[in-house]
Amino acid sequence: KINGERLWDSLMEMAKIGPGIAGGNNRQTLTDDDAEGRALFQKWCEEAGMTMGVDQMGTMFARREGTDPAALPVYVGSHLDTQPTGGKYDGVLGVLGGLEIIRSLNDLGIKTKHPIVVTNWTNEEGTRFAPAMLASGVFAGIHSQDWAYEREDAEGKNFGDELVRIGWKGEEAVGARKMHAFFELHIEQGPILEAEGKDIGVVTHGQGLSWTEVTITGKESHTGSTPMPMRRNAGLAMARVLELVDEIALSHAPDAVGAAGHIDVYPNSRNVIPGKVVFTVDFRSPDLAMIQDMEQRLIDGGNKICDDMGMAIEFEKVGGFDPVEFDEGCVTAVRNAADRLGYSHRDIISGAGHDACWINRVAPTAMVMCPCVDGLSHNEAEEISPEWAAAGANVLFHAVVETAEI
Amino acid sequence: KINGERLWDSLMEMAKIGPGIAGGNNRQTLTDDDAEGRALFQKWCEEAGMTMGVDQMGTMFARREGTDPAALPVYVGSHLDTQPTGGKYDGVLGVLGGLEIIRSLNDLGIKTKHPIVVTNWTNEEGTRFAPAMLASGVFAGIHSQDWAYEREDAEGKNFGDELVRIGWKGEEAVGARKMHAFFELHIEQGPILEAEGKDIGVVTHGQGLSWTEVTITGKESHTGSTPMPMRRNAGLAMARVLELVDEIALSHAPDAVGAAGHIDVYPNSRNVIPGKVVFTVDFRSPDLAMIQDMEQRLIDGGNKICDDMGMAIEFEKVGGFDPVEFDEGCVTAVRNAADRLGYSHRDIISGAGHDACWINRVAPTAMVMCPCVDGLSHNEAEEISPEWAAAGANVLFHAVVETAEI
Ligand SMILES: NC(=O)NCCC(=O)O
Ligand SMILES: NC(=O)NCCC(=O)O
Repeated sequence: KINGERLWDSLMEMAKIGPGIAGGNNRQTLTDDDAEGRALFQKWCEEAGMTMGVDQMGTMFARREGTDPAALPVYVGSHLDTQPTGGKYDGVLGVLGGLEIIRSLNDLGIKTKHPIVVTNWTNEEGTRFAPAMLASGVFAGIHSQDWAYEREDAEGKNFGDELVRIGWKGEEAVGARKMHAFFELHIEQGPILEAEGKDIGVVTHGQGLSWTEVTITGKESHTGSTPMPMRRNAGLAMARVLELVDEIALSHAPDAVGAAGHIDVYPNSRNVIPGKVVFTVDFRSPDLAMIQDMEQRLIDGGNKICDDMGMAIEFEKVGGFDPVEFDEGCVTAVRNAADRLGYSHRDIISGAGHDACWINRVAPTAMVMCPCVDGLSHNEAEEISPEWAAAGANVLFHAVVETAEI
Repeated sequence: KINGERLWDSLMEMAKIGPGIAGGNNRQTLTDDDAEGRALFQKWCEEAGMTMGVDQMGTMFARREGTDPAALPVYVGSHLDTQPTGGKYDGVLGVLGGLEIIRSLNDLGIKTKHPIVVTNWTNEEGTRFAPAMLASGVFAGIHSQDWAYEREDAEGKNFGDELVRIGWKGEEAVGARKMHAFFELHIEQGPILEAEGKDIGVVTHGQGLSWTEVTITGKESHTGSTPMPMRRNAGLAMARVLELVDEIALSHAPDAVGAAGHIDVYPNSRNVIPGKVVFTVDFRSPDLAMIQDMEQRLIDGGNKICDDMGMAIEFEKVGGFDPVEFDEGCVTAVRNAADRLGYSHRDIISGAGHDACWINRVAPTAMVMCPCVDGLSHNEAEEISPEWAAAGANVLFHAVVETAEI
């Protein structure tokens, strides 16, 4: 078994970097805090006898050698970046859980045939630079590296420049590595495991995602002196589209969800009718046809709303992936590990996107989930217990070691 | 008559300071650009033989002496600050129209019994620091100076500090000056005069205003993994309140208007359900009872929407003034001036708020309006013709000189 106390201490240590305002974290990708978190992780990896590789997307790969020089490595990991008001475990548990596996193997003096590589994928959250899972997406050949470099944050800074600025642009070609398998441990971020009292989620599928950036163009004018019939209020049109998004998602419930988390209003002045609004609609479902239906209904319904109001509307798909079915062999390894360790478990579909969803395209992949309190995530109050973290890391340990062969 | 060409040249010269991105201006209050605009105005006033006084709210008072040392001055002016995407005339015409009066009196060698003071009121727009007409409100005794100093912009900078920073905090006690009368020339910012082909609006009333800042608190959570029934989506609640605002205003149309120009969503991340939204509702009407009815229906309806959705809502009144009836004597002076000069005119109610609305509480006050193209204002494309500007300034000239007595 892994050392649960050491894992928890490391989680708490990492959480000191980029603290939030309410007990969580704000360690957004490619910020100075991200650089500091990376440096701490690097130090820990070196102390555990691993060697660090960094690719041109800034993804970190800490390697523990195997006994067979020809064997492809087993990869394990997740991400250290957080939401602006994020929790201490989302992503971090998967990276430090991977590190804990190595520390435990060292403690136990166990050598594996396959090397094991602990990975920190760059920009998983997608808050600062859309889309989410950007570096794993480039690794899996979904996005080009140049396109990724051009992604801009709200201040107009681009990904490529910021990666150089924080000093974490590596030399290694992205996607050059071949993997024997990839495992990711993550908190559920939903309420199912806790509600059912299960220790472990064996992730068989990931639901698909669609992000559509909507731009509505009205006409800026005075809130006081512009008669109601002359108004082209882009904020009001947005309100109607937000209501539509909710209706569309509810029409497929419980098999789909939908909301807009990002909303910018221009010029955002109390006495100016909004002339432009930009917001991003997030639709998800495990069923690809449902996602496509929701996207189409957003376009049709949004066009109708704006036509009726005399405004222009544009739709741009800024992120997304199809529903994922994880590798049967890897999933079985996770399920067997949970059985062997005597943890209660159930098969589960991931509601969130994960780097594993992209890596599944290029390597046999599976995920381990542990519960989180009230299913709450993307909130500074995100919480798990040390026991839940240890159980997840133990299952990860056994699945990885079985796959890496002793 | 005034010199219309000189007035237009000065308008164009001032518009070079704090240019916008689409032909208009972004010269928001207490920015470096505001300081530069003030310095240019001061230079012009000194060249016209006036002496400058500045009060502790940064309001500028340029004085031309009268022949009777005991006579109270006639004040004339408006504001040089603009919206973030504002026009070249909103406010500026009233200040530079006042300056043009002095230049014309100098050209003609006319002395008036009463001194004439050309005024630039600080922070009329209320975009950077709510409420609008802040300095004239302190002058009229509506707000305390300390309260005004504490007003914060979106970055948390306060009015008092920013006033010192740009170097325009004067020594003079605010409101110490007594006025014989106050006149303000302004573009209509609405469509009526242009549509009816009138040169001049004789402003008899100003409609009242109510700004309510609404805060809705939901619960931040993951857009992917939070089941629909567990969501507390503050953005969706806001959408419903925005629809309600429109319904309420339309129920009183054409005698009321309503909209929200300012909307902030937290944490504003694509994959986080908004946990908090803050937006400002702007209701207006010439009828005080209607304003009060709209405010109450916003509170009742907003509470109902949020109760039904399991969210908290708070309302804070952050600005407002009751409908205004301008001084009969001053209004008559404006109407007579338009008649005398042969301009077509009509009585009109101002749809926007103006410094004159507050000054009317402490001195006999009236306003002159000129048309603007398509009634468009608070938009960089705001436009007027040089002839309209000259007509407005001529009427202002005659009304002011008649009141200041030759
Ligand atoms: N796990 C996680 O929160 N990833 C961010 C990408 C997403 O929105 O699902
Ligand atoms: N004239 C003008 O646009 N003033 C700003 C205050 C208001 O919103 O009416």
